[in-house]
Amino acid sequence: MTLEPAAKPRLLTPGPTEVPEASLLAMARQVTHHRTPEFRSLLAEVTAGLKQVFATNNDVLILTSSGTGAMEAAVVNLVPRGGKALVLESGKFAERWRKICEAFGIQVVRYEVPWGEAFETARIAALLAEHPDTVAVFGTLLETSTGMGHDIEAIGRVVGQTPALLVVDGISGVGAMECRTDAWGIDALVVGSQKALMTPPGLAFLAVSPAAWRQIESIPPQAFYFNLLAYRRALQNSDTPYTPAIPLVKALAESLRTIRATGLETTWARSKTLARATRAGIEALGLRLVAARPADGMTAVYFPEGIDGKAFLDRLLGRFGLKLAGGQGPLTGRIFRIAHMGLVDELDVLSTIAALELVLVEMGQNVKLGTAVTAASQVLAEAH
Amino acid sequence: MTLEPAAKPRLLTPGPTEVPEASLLAMARQVTHHRTPEFRSLLAEVTAGLKQVFATNNDVLILTSSGTGAMEAAVVNLVPRGGKALVLESGKFAERWRKICEAFGIQVVRYEVPWGEAFETARIAALLAEHPDTVAVFGTLLETSTGMGHDIEAIGRVVGQTPALLVVDGISGVGAMECRTDAWGIDALVVGSQKALMTPPGLAFLAVSPAAWRQIESIPPQAFYFNLLAYRRALQNSDTPYTPAIPLVKALAESLRTIRATGLETTWARSKTLARATRAGIEALGLRLVAARPADGMTAVYFPEGIDGKAFLDRLLGRFGLKLAGGQGPLTGRIFRIAHMGLVDELDVLSTIAALELVLVEMGQNVKLGTAVTAASQVLAEAH
Repeated sequence: MTLEPAAKPRLLTPGPTEVPEASLLAMARQVTHHRTPEFRSLLAEVTAGLKQVFATNNDVLILTSSGTGAMEAAVVNLVPRGGKALVLESGKFAERWRKICEAFGIQVVRYEVPWGEAFETARIAALLAEHPDTVAVFGTLLETSTGMGHDIEAIGRVVGQTPALLVVDGISGVGAMECRTDAWGIDALVVGSQKALMTPPGLAFLAVSPAAWRQIESIPPQAFYFNLLAYRRALQNSDTPYTPAIPLVKALAESLRTIRATGLETTWARSKTLARATRAGIEALGLRLVAARPADGMTAVYFPEGIDGKAFLDRLLGRFGLKLAGGQGPLTGRIFRIAHMGLVDELDVLSTIAALELVLVEMGQNVKLGTAVTAASQVLAEAH
Repeated sequence: MTLEPAAKPRLLTPGPTEVPEASLLAMARQVTHHRTPEFRSLLAEVTAGLKQVFATNNDVLILTSSGTGAMEAAVVNLVPRGGKALVLESGKFAERWRKICEAFGIQVVRYEVPWGEAFETARIAALLAEHPDTVAVFGTLLETSTGMGHDIEAIGRVVGQTPALLVVDGISGVGAMECRTDAWGIDALVVGSQKALMTPPGLAFLAVSPAAWRQIESIPPQAFYFNLLAYRRALQNSDTPYTPAIPLVKALAESLRTIRATGLETTWARSKTLARATRAGIEALGLRLVAARPADGMTAVYFPEGIDGKAFLDRLLGRFGLKLAGGQGPLTGRIFRIAHMGLVDELDVLSTIAALELVLVEMGQNVKLGTAVTAASQVLAEAH
């Protein structure tokens, strides 16, 4: 057995994810200029496609940056220096909301629960009552560091009864799981290209509600590149204020066509089934999930006792070309993470579970080959 | 004649520029994960390649953003709120330095000359003597809005005699014209992927001198996504702090290999010759240049009297697939701009001049066919 990358790579990390062939080939086309009718028409198509996937009629802005850039854009455009923000913190990416707020001199009210656990909506309501001057509540749809799917719908109901705006990091979750931006009262939704949207990293998106725009217009932004008013002005002409990552926009257009052809509800239902099948396999292996309310887009799992996590992931990669993600922050070396969003399909899930079985047996764990695959397969059969 | 895009597109805008086939094909490969030995090794290669093109031993940081993002990164990391900056302003992109400074509460000392004209180094020295608390001087190597090549070497000598840092927008120029970052005393150099580096837009680079790092360490940055200390920490491990635009890094690696194979001095010399040939053609057409000191990477030209500029550019595009750029800001409708950097070669220059001749004749201008092409050709023959 070699630990060199296998001949047939299988990328099942929760970002970046694999990209459809049509989207890859779109990037191989010669670069064209962005201030042209053709590119404006492509941007208009992409914007409409994103609105559909985000289930919103709000403006959707396209930024050339990592998802973190769009998180910063949401923070610095909505909350003035010295303003107050409630951060719902339960993982590495929720922690990032807090760090961005702190970097820009925003007063953070912190509601922290252990990584992987849920927030109590009553506690959110109490904190907002205690801090009626809270400008915005920062939450996370799918916390990628734990695989937790937070109940944004319920959080939205609570925040909606206050003047605070609801800002949601949907970078990993949107497209892979139900997220109804308008119906749930999300005032600013941040999404990344490289997760369920099946596009390479490098683009990030922001859906901005009318209430969020009123707030943005009322404060001096601590921003230039991320000044959302410039993006809104450009959007009116199907344009971007600065040169966008042209090939990524072309790839995104192809990926959105694929999602449109499948249908959004079908895409959500597929992820849900894949998540259930994955969890059935994981449970049959006797392994433990990290998240109290596991998300549909990915699954985070504790390594079994006595296993060297790095060696485990290296074996999956070396023997099968199967790239899973390890843990982050306090979970480093303690968990692994499997994506089942975007291009990942039923057979990818089954073969991933099969690979886990084989490597666990190789590493001396008491696992009966076929049991976990059978459990996962049964979920798929029943869902069909 | 149709104004539809021609079957054979020729992109000669000063950004984006055409991308070599190997770089395009690199983007068509399936996305791979970035936290891997393979990608770290690619990032190390790319960083070394950028250092060579920038003629620097300073740290070079890779940002996923447009060039404007890296301009903002330079501003917010080097100059504190309330700090003083001298902006050398003579075009749209120099103006952007000022606007970024203003957005972040920086005191701007403005040395403005008409678009396309040069700065007097004596005046820069006088302004720095008058404002000894100037933290940084913001200049432009190639002002894309006018085609002006500013004498950064001379400006560097003046700034080097003061405590101020020299920050240069080399987005368009670097790679297309001589720019010796270390020898000229440039403390922060901003470069974009989509110009002479022959890579699609979406990446930007910053070369940071030890003096600049000392300044960055000494002030609280108004930044999170663009906090350069995070990029420096990641760089030590050949990494980036946030998920980078992976396919663009792969394309850049290929383009840098092409530049390395050609040699940097040879690349500079080629642009210089192409610029001279272009100018010879333009002069033979009786047209007037915008820049007092035209840059090697591109040429900006006033439309002849009585020509509808938009119709002129539309004809070049419709008949020949030749995409040139128009003017920006106060030069909108008054000038056109031709790039001769990156993939643009001798025959591209000659055919562009030939296209200008044909369209000018068509539009009733008094031009003798062949004259301008001959003038340009003579420059190429003599340079060979």
